This record gives sequence, structure tokens and C-alpha cells, in this order.
Amino acid sequence: MLTVLTTTDSAEKAAALARGAVEARLAACAQISSPVTSVYRWQGGIETAQEWQVLFKTTNERYERLEAHLRAVHDYDTPEIIAVQVVRGSGPYLAWVAEETTG
Amino acid sequence: MLTVLTTTDSAEKAAALARGAVEARLAACAQISSPVTSVYRWQGGIETAQEWQVLFKTTNERYERLEAHLRAVHDYDTPEIIAVQVVRGSGPYLAWVAEETTG
Amino acid sequence: MLTVLTTTDSAEKAAALARGAVEARLAACAQISSPVTSVYRWQGGIETAQEWQVLFKTTNERYERLEAHLRAVHDYDTPEIIAVQVVRGSGPYLAWVAEETTG
Repeated sequence: MLTVLTTTDSAEKAAALARGAVEARLAACAQISSPVTSVYRWQGGIETAQEWQVLFKTTNERYERLEAHLRAVHDYDTPEIIAVQVVRGSGPYLAWVAEETTG
Repeated sequence: MLTVLTTTDSAEKAAALARGAVEARLAACAQISSPVTSVYRWQGGIETAQEWQVLFKTTNERYERLEAHLRAVHDYDTPEIIAVQVVRGSGPYLAWVAEETTG
Repeated sequence: MLTVLTTTDSAEKAAALARGAVEARLAACAQISSPVTSVYRWQGGIETAQEWQVLFKTTNERYERLEAHLRAVHDYDTPEIIAVQVVRGSGPYLAWVAEETTG
């Protein structure tokens, strides 16, 4: 199982990204954070922006389709899409994630 | 060292989960998020719910006891309990986590 | 690529940590969370404190310099600095992180 993180610039867009992936069974669930402040370099200066993180739970098998989906629907040119491996977990929860992302 | 994530449906329950694990030395510390919006499938539709994430810091050795503890005290049927490996870290902080989870 | 997490006790300090690392090209970007509640053991009792998480995105190559920088500028004796490996990600985003942390 993987956790997959993306960010976007409104709560509404974050909700649409979460719902779209769960509806398509590309993630079992997703959690939308409270607002975060992103800090990055832009044209030589440091910019800050309010964003929302979306953390998807999916299987390793589903990752490529989830990434392709997010790149298709996200309105950033280069959205953050990064995945971290889950190395331990509750058996019933891992089974639920696998079941929800199948079919 | 691992980070271990669970979620629950009130700030009070999140605080109780955090405090219980730290008191029992099953985690060195825990961080309770601001509210997050969870999106998941339920009986054919997409549901959303407000939840709180609890992120525990513990050792690989303590993981099984922490998971067993959380499954015993959490009031969800299938709570999210997932762990991610810490691959680099500040030496003194890693030593503190090990010390706090011993004894 | 790694995600590197630290925490501090004010939004202003979190912003300074984020900005300093991005300015020095030790991270491509950083996200500062909404406030979190930290739970930990202190002198035999359980304490809670409001903190802010800062999540840096950097390369494996840059980790040591980022850690050294954070340890030098953070005002905690033993700040949390922990890193997690990114195992999958969008190619253009990973390339952007590498580019922003070079030079």
C-alpha cells in the first residue's frame, strides 16, 4: 500500500480530486488537510501560497493509474504527486484498501 | 523509527489516543492534526466526514505493541493504522524516540 | 527524493525555517501545516503543546546539508528532523525538485 500526496489551491479543487479518485476506485479514501502555507521559489524570489494537501490511500498496483488520472484532471502544469510506501499496517485496514480499489 | 498514522472522528478521541500511547511508552510523541476532510465510499455512494489524524513516532521494535493497543482502544471497526519507515533523521532526535519508548 | 519533517512552536518560526531552506536551495519547497497539538512526556507527566509542522521536499543528495542547516537554525535543543523516502512520483515534479535544489 502507498500514500500518495498532491496539493492544490482551493478546498473545492481538493474535494473534487479526492472524490474523483475514490469514485474511480483509484484510491480507497483520501484526506484533505486544513489549509497549509506553501513556500517555493518563483522567478528568483520566494513566494508563499495557501494550498490544501490531499493524501490518497491506494495499492502499489493502482499507483500508475492514479498518477495518470491526477495528471489529467489537475489544473497545475507540474502538480506535486509523490508516493510513500506503507511498511506496516493493520491487516483489516490494508485488506479494505485493496478491496476498495478493485473492480 | 516509524511514523504511524491513525484517524478518528473527534479532537477528544484523538487526544485520548495520543495520550494513551505516550503514557504506555508505545510512542515517544504524537501530533494531532487540525481537522481533515475524509472522502470514502460507503454503500455505493461517496461520503465525506470530518476527522483528525494522529501521527505517532515510535521504533520499529514497538510497532506491534502500538498497533495492538490502538486496535484495542480505537472505537472504529476497521481503524486506519499505517506505518512509514523513517530513513534518515537527526541522531539526537532518533535517540530520544528510542529512549522514550523503552522501559 | 525525500520528504523531511520538522516542527516548531510558532507560525513565524515555521515560515522562517521554510523560507531559509528554500532560499539556500536545500529544499525545492516546503509546506507549513495548520496548527497541530503535540503530545509528549516531560518530567514524568504528559504535556501538550501547539506546534506547526514544516514538510520539506528535497533530494537524497541534499539531505545532509538540509539537516545540518535545520540543526543550526532551529531553536529547540533536540528538534524533530525525520525523512521519508519518496518511492514513486510524477516525473516532471521529481525533475523540478532536483532542479530547484541544484546550483
